[in-house]
Amino acid sequence: MEPMQKNRTPTLLLDKDICKANIKRMAERAQKQNLRFKPHMKTHQSIQVGKWLKEYGISAITVSSVKMAQYFANDGWQDITIAFPCNVRQLPELNDLAKDISLTLLINKSKTVSLLAKHLKNPVDTYIEIDTGSNRSGLISDNITEIKELINAINKTNYVNWIGFYSHAGHSYNCRSTKEITAVQNSIVSQFKTLRKHIEPVFGTFEICSGDTPCCSIADNFSSIDAISPGNFVFYDLMQTQIKSCESSDIAVAMECPIVDKYAERGEVIIYGGAIHFSKESMNEDRKTHYGAVAHRVNNCWEPIDDTSYLTKLSQEHGVIHCSKQVFNNYDIGDTITILPVHSCLTANLMAEYQLTDKKGTKVGMMD
Amino acid sequence: MEPMQKNRTPTLLLDKDICKANIKRMAERAQKQNLRFKPHMKTHQSIQVGKWLKEYGISAITVSSVKMAQYFANDGWQDITIAFPCNVRQLPELNDLAKDISLTLLINKSKTVSLLAKHLKNPVDTYIEIDTGSNRSGLISDNITEIKELINAINKTNYVNWIGFYSHAGHSYNCRSTKEITAVQNSIVSQFKTLRKHIEPVFGTFEICSGDTPCCSIADNFSSIDAISPGNFVFYDLMQTQIKSCESSDIAVAMECPIVDKYAERGEVIIYGGAIHFSKESMNEDRKTHYGAVAHRVNNCWEPIDDTSYLTKLSQEHGVIHCSKQVFNNYDIGDTITILPVHSCLTANLMAEYQLTDKKGTKVGMMD
Repeated sequence: MEPMQKNRTPTLLLDKDICKANIKRMAERAQKQNLRFKPHMKTHQSIQVGKWLKEYGISAITVSSVKMAQYFANDGWQDITIAFPCNVRQLPELNDLAKDISLTLLINKSKTVSLLAKHLKNPVDTYIEIDTGSNRSGLISDNITEIKELINAINKTNYVNWIGFYSHAGHSYNCRSTKEITAVQNSIVSQFKTLRKHIEPVFGTFEICSGDTPCCSIADNFSSIDAISPGNFVFYDLMQTQIKSCESSDIAVAMECPIVDKYAERGEVIIYGGAIHFSKESMNEDRKTHYGAVAHRVNNCWEPIDDTSYLTKLSQEHGVIHCSKQVFNNYDIGDTITILPVHSCLTANLMAEYQLTDKKGTKVGMMD
Repeated sequence: MEPMQKNRTPTLLLDKDICKANIKRMAERAQKQNLRFKPHMKTHQSIQVGKWLKEYGISAITVSSVKMAQYFANDGWQDITIAFPCNVRQLPELNDLAKDISLTLLINKSKTVSLLAKHLKNPVDTYIEIDTGSNRSGLISDNITEIKELINAINKTNYVNWIGFYSHAGHSYNCRSTKEITAVQNSIVSQFKTLRKHIEPVFGTFEICSGDTPCCSIADNFSSIDAISPGNFVFYDLMQTQIKSCESSDIAVAMECPIVDKYAERGEVIIYGGAIHFSKESMNEDRKTHYGAVAHRVNNCWEPIDDTSYLTKLSQEHGVIHCSKQVFNNYDIGDTITILPVHSCLTANLMAEYQLTDKKGTKVGMMD
């Protein structure tokens, strides 16, 4: 019996070899393209995974919250970007962090600049965020006047040092082929080139950091980009296989859940594993909405077991798996079943711990 | 400045008065209908809210996991139903619990009975779950043969004592009017009456416990039902207002989130508050999908501020609020904004702590 088969409650399994292979591949892509690699830690939120990243010479990281910056700073990381529009209500925490580490913020508005100028006591670097098409946050790249005004406002402050631009091309998540991913990347590169043309002559050299997992995994055109900060690539997930960022054999995490009930007439298996374990992130495949795919281990990878066995309903703690006859017959009450998650970031955040697929079933911690 | 306006990060506010009024109303409904009230604790997961329930003479509670049973047993609750198909992989924990408290399980399959018979060392009570229409777990009420066989199997064991039937009519969540809720309840009652007719003559008297918040909040027909175990009613949420289980003034929790960015051209405000705070539970209203509604305090209640200001997009930590011009103009970067959650159970589970709306902003803990 493998250690993972002893689990009594929903457990997030982590295959260290797959994860380290994902890290190696991305680190080599960055090196080949001469890009600084500043991986986003929000997917794994784990000091241990951070150690695996360090093996590839990584010294600068990206996080999505002040708390996450504190967590990794406490583990000795000295160069941290909080890739989230600066939350001025956390200025005391930012001041503390900036005392100890090289801290980079995202600033998109002059209001934020003025509040930082007033209250900041230690130097920080800052990117201006560029909205390259995701329509979430950031300035539009051809809004040169506003961008220049913002750089000027930043340059007038004592402690905020403008270093360049940051973008998370979240719209690459709408892609369904490597061709579409490449097109998104080309569009981003084109926007950054325009930016360089207008900004560099006035303000001198600067850094551009771009960070989505689909483009960083697939694209080859990083012209005008200096650094990348993908996050999800450490684990990948079903959503990324649908986007075509990865193969399912690259997925490093899977949920192992106890089977608690079965309904032959509906072809459904009920698991202990619900919305508070998987998250309610869903995806559509062949007009079906689901929250995960039943998987098995093949050659030390997890592969979806067939095209018909999916986690189709989630309550708070129940999961309903609609499955093929074969899967239904192969699993009984008291067994566990393994499911690939739709969105590994949200599943990991809920599970708050990993269990390695090594012989010992070593536990790996995460941020509280 | 109210204490809640000092919050620096996403905070789950809890109005104790509204919560206690919700508890009082449900306790009085149960008393009026002569029903045992065994509230489900999965929504709040909090010893403190448990204390407010105790004020209404409640002694038996319902939970959704072994861990939650342990948490409340440690606080002195002596009669706990785990309303989840029995997870036989946790038999060691169940044995420990059954030593200390009156423990009731849900058993739906003879396989589960045989595993319990083999490994159980202390007596437990058990309900058989009836699937009254939610198609999740439980036996169909007119499958009398299977139900009788299961009762017989249970009665043959040494430590498992069959006490009746349990149902969570999850399909009441599809209702959109009190009339529809009443119809669901009437259908449940009709199923239970048939059950009584067939089972009572053979096996004697037993208890029926039924537990969804919509039916327990609205219905008046509890004929043949002995106990109720609603959970969500302590807080309610936007989903329950849409079902018509409650008024928005009954919603006891709201998220307070810092505003970090604004986009006038899109009428959008960006908040620190994402999928890891709200959960990705969404609802559809007027063909719009959203994750929460912008609210304000009116007469010590939260009310949606208008019909056009919703949390329309969620990333891991970002929320995008598409809002009316008035809301857009009333809030600036550095302010906080209050949002009613779609599904309070999942939001509470993620937030893991409440802040009361009292003057001190008292913190109330939850299960780890």
